[in-house]
Amino acid sequence: SSLFTSPHTSARGFRNLPSASIPAMAILSEVATEVLIPLAAVVGIAFAIAQWVIVSRVKLAPSLPGVRDKDVMGDSLIEEEEGLNDHNVVVKCAEIQNAIAEGATSFLFTEYQYVGIFMSIFAVVIFLFLGSVEGFSTRSHPCTYSKDKECKPALFNALFSTVSFLLGAVTSVVSGFLGMKIATYANARTTLEARKGVGKAFITAFRSGAVMGFLLASNGLLVLYIAINLFKLYYGDDWEGLFESITGYGLGGSSMALFGRVGGGIYTKAADVGADLVGKVERNIPEDDPRNPAVIADNVGDNVGDIAGMGSDLFGSYAESSCAALVVASISSFGVNHDFTGMCYPLLVSSVGIIVCLITTLFATDFFEIKAVQEIEPALKKQLIISTVLMTVGIALISWVALPAKFTIFNFGEQKEVSNWGLFLCVAIGLWAGLIIGYVTEYYTSNAYSPVQDVADACRTGAATNVIFGLALGYKSVIIPIFVIAVGIYVSFTIAAMYGIAVAALGMLSTIATGLSIDAYGPISDNAGGIAEMAGMSHRIRERTDALDAAGNTTAAIGKGFAIGSAALVSLALFGAFVSRAGVKVVDVLSPKVIIGLVVGAMLPYWFSAMTMKSVGSAALEMVEEVRRQFNTIPGLMEGTGKPDYANCVKISTDASIRQMIPPGALVMLTPLVVGTFFGVHTLAGVLAGALVSGVQVAISASNTGGAWDNAKKYIEAGASEHARMLGPKGSDCHKAAVIGDTIGDPLKDTSGPSLNILIKLMAVESLVFAPFFATHGGILFKLF
Amino acid sequence: SSLFTSPHTSARGFRNLPSASIPAMAILSEVATEVLIPLAAVVGIAFAIAQWVIVSRVKLAPSLPGVRDKDVMGDSLIEEEEGLNDHNVVVKCAEIQNAIAEGATSFLFTEYQYVGIFMSIFAVVIFLFLGSVEGFSTRSHPCTYSKDKECKPALFNALFSTVSFLLGAVTSVVSGFLGMKIATYANARTTLEARKGVGKAFITAFRSGAVMGFLLASNGLLVLYIAINLFKLYYGDDWEGLFESITGYGLGGSSMALFGRVGGGIYTKAADVGADLVGKVERNIPEDDPRNPAVIADNVGDNVGDIAGMGSDLFGSYAESSCAALVVASISSFGVNHDFTGMCYPLLVSSVGIIVCLITTLFATDFFEIKAVQEIEPALKKQLIISTVLMTVGIALISWVALPAKFTIFNFGEQKEVSNWGLFLCVAIGLWAGLIIGYVTEYYTSNAYSPVQDVADACRTGAATNVIFGLALGYKSVIIPIFVIAVGIYVSFTIAAMYGIAVAALGMLSTIATGLSIDAYGPISDNAGGIAEMAGMSHRIRERTDALDAAGNTTAAIGKGFAIGSAALVSLALFGAFVSRAGVKVVDVLSPKVIIGLVVGAMLPYWFSAMTMKSVGSAALEMVEEVRRQFNTIPGLMEGTGKPDYANCVKISTDASIRQMIPPGALVMLTPLVVGTFFGVHTLAGVLAGALVSGVQVAISASNTGGAWDNAKKYIEAGASEHARMLGPKGSDCHKAAVIGDTIGDPLKDTSGPSLNILIKLMAVESLVFAPFFATHGGILFKLF
Repeated sequence: SSLFTSPHTSARGFRNLPSASIPAMAILSEVATEVLIPLAAVVGIAFAIAQWVIVSRVKLAPSLPGVRDKDVMGDSLIEEEEGLNDHNVVVKCAEIQNAIAEGATSFLFTEYQYVGIFMSIFAVVIFLFLGSVEGFSTRSHPCTYSKDKECKPALFNALFSTVSFLLGAVTSVVSGFLGMKIATYANARTTLEARKGVGKAFITAFRSGAVMGFLLASNGLLVLYIAINLFKLYYGDDWEGLFESITGYGLGGSSMALFGRVGGGIYTKAADVGADLVGKVERNIPEDDPRNPAVIADNVGDNVGDIAGMGSDLFGSYAESSCAALVVASISSFGVNHDFTGMCYPLLVSSVGIIVCLITTLFATDFFEIKAVQEIEPALKKQLIISTVLMTVGIALISWVALPAKFTIFNFGEQKEVSNWGLFLCVAIGLWAGLIIGYVTEYYTSNAYSPVQDVADACRTGAATNVIFGLALGYKSVIIPIFVIAVGIYVSFTIAAMYGIAVAALGMLSTIATGLSIDAYGPISDNAGGIAEMAGMSHRIRERTDALDAAGNTTAAIGKGFAIGSAALVSLALFGAFVSRAGVKVVDVLSPKVIIGLVVGAMLPYWFSAMTMKSVGSAALEMVEEVRRQFNTIPGLMEGTGKPDYANCVKISTDASIRQMIPPGALVMLTPLVVGTFFGVHTLAGVLAGALVSGVQVAISASNTGGAWDNAKKYIEAGASEHARMLGPKGSDCHKAAVIGDTIGDPLKDTSGPSLNILIKLMAVESLVFAPFFATHGGILFKLF
Repeated sequence: SSLFTSPHTSARGFRNLPSASIPAMAILSEVATEVLIPLAAVVGIAFAIAQWVIVSRVKLAPSLPGVRDKDVMGDSLIEEEEGLNDHNVVVKCAEIQNAIAEGATSFLFTEYQYVGIFMSIFAVVIFLFLGSVEGFSTRSHPCTYSKDKECKPALFNALFSTVSFLLGAVTSVVSGFLGMKIATYANARTTLEARKGVGKAFITAFRSGAVMGFLLASNGLLVLYIAINLFKLYYGDDWEGLFESITGYGLGGSSMALFGRVGGGIYTKAADVGADLVGKVERNIPEDDPRNPAVIADNVGDNVGDIAGMGSDLFGSYAESSCAALVVASISSFGVNHDFTGMCYPLLVSSVGIIVCLITTLFATDFFEIKAVQEIEPALKKQLIISTVLMTVGIALISWVALPAKFTIFNFGEQKEVSNWGLFLCVAIGLWAGLIIGYVTEYYTSNAYSPVQDVADACRTGAATNVIFGLALGYKSVIIPIFVIAVGIYVSFTIAAMYGIAVAALGMLSTIATGLSIDAYGPISDNAGGIAEMAGMSHRIRERTDALDAAGNTTAAIGKGFAIGSAALVSLALFGAFVSRAGVKVVDVLSPKVIIGLVVGAMLPYWFSAMTMKSVGSAALEMVEEVRRQFNTIPGLMEGTGKPDYANCVKISTDASIRQMIPPGALVMLTPLVVGTFFGVHTLAGVLAGALVSGVQVAISASNTGGAWDNAKKYIEAGASEHARMLGPKGSDCHKAAVIGDTIGDPLKDTSGPSLNILIKLMAVESLVFAPFFATHGGILFKLF
């Protein structure tokens, strides 16, 4: 009745392992592990709260005259000031922030309502499907990898999988929501600090980003850790059952991320495209002009798409790579030897990551100070390098103390000896691969280098050549990341099979707290700029927020590179775990079941992108109609005497994105269920592999194309070089062509591209969770014929 | 020393086949086969010549007054006439035609020079690589699949492979060149016939297309047939060696096609984009206006890209699918039983195809007559349906007489019993899959249906939404073709393993003569319209040629769908043949060697597209500079008093395309060699599978996106519906947005997209030819570490 009773497995099962008789244990004791993990998580949370307290010191309400004067006196000695005495500006900023925060909160609540219904239904599906594997029997059965042990019944695995699924979903919701809260709390404060100088503004935005980064990384770790320990009360030493149930956590996190990314992505781009098409192109008013009715919706979009959506996405990656690593580790010699420390190695890596990122953050907030705009981007990039270097040391340490010198990994029916230094190499290669991918992404999307400058140059002959060059750039930018991923896969796979891939993915995500800080910094600065514009602050302050924003664009591109690279490794690791769990020994391209899966799987990213692009387009058209209507019907709107109806635009974006996120969401969630149930595990394996290898290309090229167009436009606008000035200024034909490219790139880089990460990860983790069901009951269609 | 001496094979080799003792033979005798094939080819050639003779009756030189008057008198009774008495028009048309023909000839000669050098070098590489397999030994060795027989030495296989490679290349050159010749012979004649009515013009263009279609199909078959018979003189009953050597024919055809497609594609789109950007956008003059200096280059481009390039492409597909089917058939029971008729089944299918297409053509040229413009498109589409229906009967017949009731296919070390009716089903499923893909392509690219109309509608909000909707349309158009291909693969693989796939591909290409006739008809009509415009013919005539052209656009899209669908099946068949020949039993996605191949392979279409798109962009920029220069420096050019320097534009397109075709060409040609030599056959198998599953998506979406933009523009221009008139007219903002989309689509649909067909096919056939070398000496890198 068990899934894994193939002759292959039982003949070479871990019972016969020589190492099982003399278990090699790690230096770090089980008790130390049990202390270290929650400690790191709690330290991370405390650090986040501390950062939040510091940000909250910037007062958004006009302070009493006496107090303000004192403040101003102190600051005025070291920094230039501007408009510090202006009550109205502060009030205005607070108003705008409130409008943005309200819009974001109302969208997220609406989204969570719909997603909540879906999650409840899906939880029932998980329970029923997994419970049916042994016909809802409550009898224990022999373990798959240790035949002499009793393992818990499938019904309870179903129950615990459902619980961890809901836990993952809730954690993801909390992560996204908190991120949005701090971002909408920090944006106006960043604007106000910009009056005192670029350094103060930078530090406010960066600290706020850190609140999100550390909260998310620490929460994710803590919840996972607590769940494992609670589940252990029931499972005892049934490691297989325990960690199989825990994979539900990854599925929950990722399902939530799907809707967050897609819904948020449609929201933000519908508003952005709609605002730009009427405002910039038709009415010739600047970005973030308060006369534009869609301007609040646009700023809300940054928070729900780029903050909440991206937070859920990266939390999903993190949860999934941890789960993939844990489930593979549980069926290794760690499980046989009851080596809890060894099994928890993935969590220990994340714990070290939090501490390393904490130290890294101090470099930006305390050890150095930003004095000029050109120091911002290097400071952010230094964060990545510092965290990567420190983390390399951290990984080496933890690999040394937490792993036995040699251990054994189960690899599709064969065993593989791995040394702790080998595993260190796997994690490190993932970590550094992430950095390389990030820097390549930057090269192709930053206007400091020739690729984007070439795209900007192509604007001379109009929008068409701009688009052609931009598409070509996106395609080209795929090359190096793919080679880096391929090398990473080959090395880590050769060293430690699928476990190597899983920890490589984890390595790439180990500095997630820093990565997220930087990522969240971007939209906060973007919003800060928007608020400065809307509050009518001076050109000089706008210039400072623009500089913050520009640096944020570059790091956002790097962050997207990371997200895609890690998604590729994570989904490969999940794929490996799925194949193991489904009892598949070989996924042979030469078998028709696999090849049709591969072809169809490679098509899915296109289908999905078609849906999301079309969604953005349709939602943007609705927004355009509304903005046009307001300009035409509200008297005095263009002159600044009439007040636009911001709320209606927010409502249109909200409704459209909720409505439009359902079809792409259904495609991703249903595909593994349909394929697994009707065509079986081999075709499903083909689908996963096809979606992975095709999706990663589409995702990278879409993100980078969009980023390049965005920065080509900024390059012309900034006019920082002779060449850029020749193409500019704002409003020139070249610039108009560049704006068209930028608009096309919006859905590519902020909706379709990033959502594809989730497509490839989510289908893999869903297959993993449902693997026992598919292996027992799947492939109905082939069984019939 | 042999490649195939795996225990698996020798244990279950064909020696032990029960059926080998009592061979089941086909009804058709060997002698009948030997007559039927060349007869069909010769009939096809004769038919092509007959069509050419009919076309040549349209006189391009002004005839003597008396004779002309008689002609006119006769025609005037049944047809309206326009400008028939105008000497000058005829002279002008002849002049323009000469200029186009000269430009095309000079480009092709330049191209062939460069490609000739490359081909010579590559021929030496083939000889050296394959010769080295057994260390240039001249000793015979035991056959792989029939151990008791002696097979010819590898050195001679190398020699014959080289010869067939050169034969394939030369046949491809001849096919492309003849196509271009007849097209540039027919374009002005079509224009002149348009004076007498749309029916006459249609029939001229269609007959000319048929010349190309039948010449290409028949030549391809005849050369292959003669080569097999000549090689047989040496090989005797060493079928393995014979058909392995013959695969060089496919490689030669496809290598030539690569450069034809890429070079021709860059040429045509550089000229087109360059002409449009300055002419339509900047100077506001109509398409094909004689004042535009790039107008001749643009028309030359249609002939070298859409005619010569596409001809080479489809010839390559045809040659490759024949070779793939033959090489698999040679190691089946046909080979063991010396069943020559059975082995030649693929050629017999093609022979029947020529006859079927001949009858089909008569439906357009003789059985029915076109009287109004709206009858053109249905007439062309009817061609496809008639040929498919007739061919289904033809396949059934030939499967019945040419195949034994049961035979055995070798499938990666296992055997598979196949019935003749099963194989009929494989061919038929390929044939009908092609038709379905064609019609889906039409649905997504014709402006008679809602997808293109939606794209046109998106122009209301500007170029950006037009592009977003167009990209989404292209992505969406992938879905159904992929499902159709998947079903085709599954059914034909299940019935007859890789042989099933090979004959399914052949089935799709069996009506190639009709497909090519229709395809070639398009650019001829396009040119005819251009000549009418340049010769200053009346609006009414221009309307007729426009109608011909519009119908051609639709059928061109269908043709592209066919080309991609067949490329997918062909490359899968070649992949299967490669894997067999390289002695690979399993291509396991779970092995690191394969997965890295898969990931990198899926990246190659992007790399390749980046190169070709950038090439078109750069070449177009050069063209734009030149056209602008001429408009600025030649006095009276805009007024029509100055004469533009057409030749310089032709030269720029020629030089740019020759220069730019080398990097993408090198990428495709070198990848299999580098991967096979350094990483070995498993990684190469992964690369091929990855490139296939990813490339087919990129190709379909790129072609359809481009086609949709083209027709969205035409939809607005034509203004045939209320909706279209609301968006138009020419010159409106919507129309301008549509023109931008059309320009972006040009390189997608005519350069990158179609070239990807060749990427996936060529890498597969090259791997197949070099398989013995890779299997013996490949994988150096993995052997070292």
